[in-house]
Amino acid sequence: MGLAGTPIDPPRGFEPGPRNLITDVAGIRVGHVTLSNGGVQTGVTALLPPGSRIFERKLHAAAQVFNGYGKSAGLVQVDELGLMESPVALCGTLSVGTCWQALCRRLASDNPGLTSVNPLVFECNDGTLNDIRGFHLTEADVWQALDSAAADFVEGAVGAGRGMVCHGLSGGIGSASRMIDIDGWQFTMGVLALTNHGLLRDLAINGNPLGRGLADGGEAKQVDTGSVIMIIATDVPLTHLKLRRICRRAVIGLARTGAYMGHGSGEIAFAFSTHGGVRHQDGAAFRSHKELTDAHMDTMFRAATECVEESVLSSLWHAEAVTGYRGRRVPSLRELIDIF
Amino acid sequence: MGLAGTPIDPPRGFEPGPRNLITDVAGIRVGHVTLSNGGVQTGVTALLPPGSRIFERKLHAAAQVFNGYGKSAGLVQVDELGLMESPVALCGTLSVGTCWQALCRRLASDNPGLTSVNPLVFECNDGTLNDIRGFHLTEADVWQALDSAAADFVEGAVGAGRGMVCHGLSGGIGSASRMIDIDGWQFTMGVLALTNHGLLRDLAINGNPLGRGLADGGEAKQVDTGSVIMIIATDVPLTHLKLRRICRRAVIGLARTGAYMGHGSGEIAFAFSTHGGVRHQDGAAFRSHKELTDAHMDTMFRAATECVEESVLSSLWHAEAVTGYRGRRVPSLRELIDIF
Amino acid sequence: MGLAGTPIDPPRGFEPGPRNLITDVAGIRVGHVTLSNGGVQTGVTALLPPGSRIFERKLHAAAQVFNGYGKSAGLVQVDELGLMESPVALCGTLSVGTCWQALCRRLASDNPGLTSVNPLVFECNDGTLNDIRGFHLTEADVWQALDSAAADFVEGAVGAGRGMVCHGLSGGIGSASRMIDIDGWQFTMGVLALTNHGLLRDLAINGNPLGRGLADGGEAKQVDTGSVIMIIATDVPLTHLKLRRICRRAVIGLARTGAYMGHGSGEIAFAFSTHGGVRHQDGAAFRSHKELTDAHMDTMFRAATECVEESVLSSLWHAEAVTGYRGRRVPSLRELIDIF
Amino acid sequence: MGLAGTPIDPPRGFEPGPRNLITDVAGIRVGHVTLSNGGVQTGVTALLPPGSRIFERKLHAAAQVFNGYGKSAGLVQVDELGLMESPVALCGTLSVGTCWQALCRRLASDNPGLTSVNPLVFECNDGTLNDIRGFHLTEADVWQALDSAAADFVEGAVGAGRGMVCHGLSGGIGSASRMIDIDGWQFTMGVLALTNHGLLRDLAINGNPLGRGLADGGEAKQVDTGSVIMIIATDVPLTHLKLRRICRRAVIGLARTGAYMGHGSGEIAFAFSTHGGVRHQDGAAFRSHKELTDAHMDTMFRAATECVEESVLSSLWHAEAVTGYRGRRVPSLRELIDIF
Repeated sequence: MGLAGTPIDPPRGFEPGPRNLITDVAGIRVGHVTLSNGGVQTGVTALLPPGSRIFERKLHAAAQVFNGYGKSAGLVQVDELGLMESPVALCGTLSVGTCWQALCRRLASDNPGLTSVNPLVFECNDGTLNDIRGFHLTEADVWQALDSAAADFVEGAVGAGRGMVCHGLSGGIGSASRMIDIDGWQFTMGVLALTNHGLLRDLAINGNPLGRGLADGGEAKQVDTGSVIMIIATDVPLTHLKLRRICRRAVIGLARTGAYMGHGSGEIAFAFSTHGGVRHQDGAAFRSHKELTDAHMDTMFRAATECVEESVLSSLWHAEAVTGYRGRRVPSLRELIDIF
Repeated sequence: MGLAGTPIDPPRGFEPGPRNLITDVAGIRVGHVTLSNGGVQTGVTALLPPGSRIFERKLHAAAQVFNGYGKSAGLVQVDELGLMESPVALCGTLSVGTCWQALCRRLASDNPGLTSVNPLVFECNDGTLNDIRGFHLTEADVWQALDSAAADFVEGAVGAGRGMVCHGLSGGIGSASRMIDIDGWQFTMGVLALTNHGLLRDLAINGNPLGRGLADGGEAKQVDTGSVIMIIATDVPLTHLKLRRICRRAVIGLARTGAYMGHGSGEIAFAFSTHGGVRHQDGAAFRSHKELTDAHMDTMFRAATECVEESVLSSLWHAEAVTGYRGRRVPSLRELIDIF
Repeated sequence: MGLAGTPIDPPRGFEPGPRNLITDVAGIRVGHVTLSNGGVQTGVTALLPPGSRIFERKLHAAAQVFNGYGKSAGLVQVDELGLMESPVALCGTLSVGTCWQALCRRLASDNPGLTSVNPLVFECNDGTLNDIRGFHLTEADVWQALDSAAADFVEGAVGAGRGMVCHGLSGGIGSASRMIDIDGWQFTMGVLALTNHGLLRDLAINGNPLGRGLADGGEAKQVDTGSVIMIIATDVPLTHLKLRRICRRAVIGLARTGAYMGHGSGEIAFAFSTHGGVRHQDGAAFRSHKELTDAHMDTMFRAATECVEESVLSSLWHAEAVTGYRGRRVPSLRELIDIF
Repeated sequence: MGLAGTPIDPPRGFEPGPRNLITDVAGIRVGHVTLSNGGVQTGVTALLPPGSRIFERKLHAAAQVFNGYGKSAGLVQVDELGLMESPVALCGTLSVGTCWQALCRRLASDNPGLTSVNPLVFECNDGTLNDIRGFHLTEADVWQALDSAAADFVEGAVGAGRGMVCHGLSGGIGSASRMIDIDGWQFTMGVLALTNHGLLRDLAINGNPLGRGLADGGEAKQVDTGSVIMIIATDVPLTHLKLRRICRRAVIGLARTGAYMGHGSGEIAFAFSTHGGVRHQDGAAFRSHKELTDAHMDTMFRAATECVEESVLSSLWHAEAVTGYRGRRVPSLRELIDIF
């Protein structure tokens, strides 16, 4: 995996991790369930934080909404408490409730005393390629995605990314990682993106505005009605305020590939640190949270922009052409790159 | 309905509407489905904006989160676009996904071209009286609540309010309305509250801190782990920014009855105007939105605080004592008022 | 100082500190400069965090704007970094720039290497009693307030509070403190309020709506065009997110005395912890921040509401009647209490 | 003016206005006062909305803070009311109070009844080239900038831009405009940027990462401690919510030239519409506000990103090399372009 050696490999200030995936952040696992059958082109992607006890040991987290034309659930509590207490589910727009309920049931099942929990569900709209009004995703699909989560996972038109269209091309799941050295200590940052945004004419790769040429023959989608979700993970010790600042740099990575955040698009970044955390019930009155100092935040910002940029490109590179609802076909980037 | 003539009737700067319910705002309907059977004490309450075409004619709306320890869904898009395009469902905490999906399916069914929609779901935790881990609410229940919605509706321990505990007493659904005169024109404001917050010792009614005495014998709940949702409706022409300002005054009404917004409580206000709105697809390039001028905003603020205060009290007044999960019994305010 | 023994002493869940002032939080100092001469009734109040090195050792801080109809300066950076690096200046509306520049020059003078700093200035409008368009406050006045700051300070119509009108009465500076026990450890919280908000008819003291009677004869001010600033300090270890949550409870204390946050009023709370902090230049890559756990936040919330309520009342109790601009006279609460 | 014909002319989806300056939006005027004398390299830039009565007829406005490490004043009220009631002053960091007070006095002078006003002051830090601790800017300088404002104005190292450093080069004031056709009606958007952000190694022009080469020999500034202010004006009818959405796209334009929003940088966008507005005292109870519909927002978003991108480039193109404080010299882009 990764884009090294491909024509769309972006320049790097940091080295990617061994997988060049968000799962290079130790303990993170990702699982997909893909539904691909004629007009049904959808799915779910689950991202599990390290360990099996996210509800018992909540992690520091933050979100940033750039364009709130979206239906993601769980951000109210993240903004208030600065914590995540659930795995993350990514899905198509009209499956948010199904994913919410599936996460909720799974967390209730795993935690006998649980009577309240904040499931995290992020969505993009796969209604171009998928029979979205058919409501094909089930809670069982979500549980299967959770159960199948592993450090190795596939990118492209899989899982929640199955029916996604990014810059007029087949998009979906993209991921990248960076290794970060802070005063001699080694850390990792990773991003998982669900890409469904942008116009073909705006696509730029490494500064090359190749979308302008490709779109000359006309493109089906003249307005940006998609969305993009960017999940940022790191093992650097950070809490809410600084994680939110990192989220805000995600838009820089997006812009580098040509996004402009159209009206109908929902751009949301979510970041969490796998370091430390907060116990569900804590007998102690005080806890200490270790945190990166301000002098090193630029390292985090630059790594985040790189990871987001490469994740978008990686989703395009790995996605195959998809034919779906009403026979609509969305080409892959690789098909077009062949023309070059 | 209403509290006039009861010992807890609060002073009024404005006259209530004919029903003293949120449905005094023309066209608004409310429906409940209540599940009450042994340990199952829960339900759903649906609030429908005027007409049957909320998705086609979206209404100006805004929300304010005072304490985000809650799971309400739909606020991201409301904050971005300043519009609501769905009925509102109120429920217990672990039913948010079910309500979301039920609203989504209903809206898809009602709107053949719909491929994206933002359901609005607000919750409080009824886990004290209800077997919350049993996930008893179904999508069919939500649809039934939508179908049964009417201008007349019951307050108290019904619908989403069935298992709620407010200031240590049986709480749930409360509502109130006020008639507003603006330069000789008549308007109405109404509030629907789902009350599940507060401690008994803090309860104050009309400035009388009667909770202090009642709580002397000890109370089961020593921390505020509940929540309160306040839905504010009006036919005064208003758009996002001013509706959000009105939302912010809801906390004043809450405070008057003794709330202090405990850590574990989620306090959220949501306001919308039934005037005007925005078409789903609009061929026009420009639209004019009529709006109340700043000089009259204080009228809205004062009416909102009155409606919220009376809604909280009304939920307490109308709620019967409830015995539920594990035989727990929560007394009603009327039982205690008898002692006076 | 303090309200114990007065007719307006509010009930307490916590004991006040020795002074019942914000300066019970160790190291905090407050200084006033009052300009009182005919139509000139204004001033400045300076609040200094512990020690003399606030720029070198920034403190964790947060703000919450309830009604942003105000001109306070410095909140953009507080929201971003969660830190304060300047003393606080309180003043009349049209003196924000003067205070800003005075703080800036003082901080530059105290810190030879300083080339950037974020002065914190909060304001209410004293234009009823003060010749506000005369711009009478000077930078020298601000420096004098800084220089005269001490643990003991006067409340009422002094300093920035000189020309303020609260609930139709002479208002201004009020303060209160509470002693907090957390698992056997002793801490303190204090509030300094600058009160310039509210209508006489709304004034309530300890649940007694006495303003209704007092206002019967008509009151000069029929709309709430004032503001109120609430500075919350504590030595409990807290960082940005939790300090902001504490800020949000300030409005509960306000509501208890009858505020409803009128359109023309700017309500802002600002909170900081004197524990720990962040060095201006930190060679370390990581730092640990001790913090109160969630289970104890309700203690902070309740203490904050008590401190704010008593600070508002204390400003009214201590303020003398003031005659100022164009011979306008605003009565004191004590004058009216005599009538009772 | 403008970049047409220069080596750094960016591609355009929209045609620039006649001046390719923010003053192509009818009625807007800009004035500079530049202090350039040895170690004193600073100044002030004033932007005046159309007409002479901004306080009497407030304009719809909104702001978006991307990185709040900044001292800009006035945003609290803009966020609350969605209006601007003051000209805009841009300056160096330590002159915010001076500009605030100067705007305040001027507005008081122009409006005899004024007792409250919200001056808008935005800043970047010119401490590299300017003797910032000397506080050289005076209120008289600000008034002169206001008095000299005109439709034609100079870009580059002038006014507030005198001492600014952008991507390691001399930066400062840049501006651009775009003509917008909406259903056959002609409108204009313009941007005025004060650029003081970015690293040389990140500079990209039209997708060409030329900064990488230029920075090879080492650059003085290894961290991004600057800021950038982006003022967006348009005559398209818009109110707060949609203006804020436009602000959010400014960051896309920034990213295109290589910004990543470093920790020490304050990125803020502010947008206003010259259409309509709100009277200071309005006898009417209701007003109608014309507004662009959602279907046309993408036009605004794309125009805003183009204007911001070109404004950044234009500031670099027009800025001469500046030698200032302690003999520091910052080269101009044109010097480097010669090398190409």
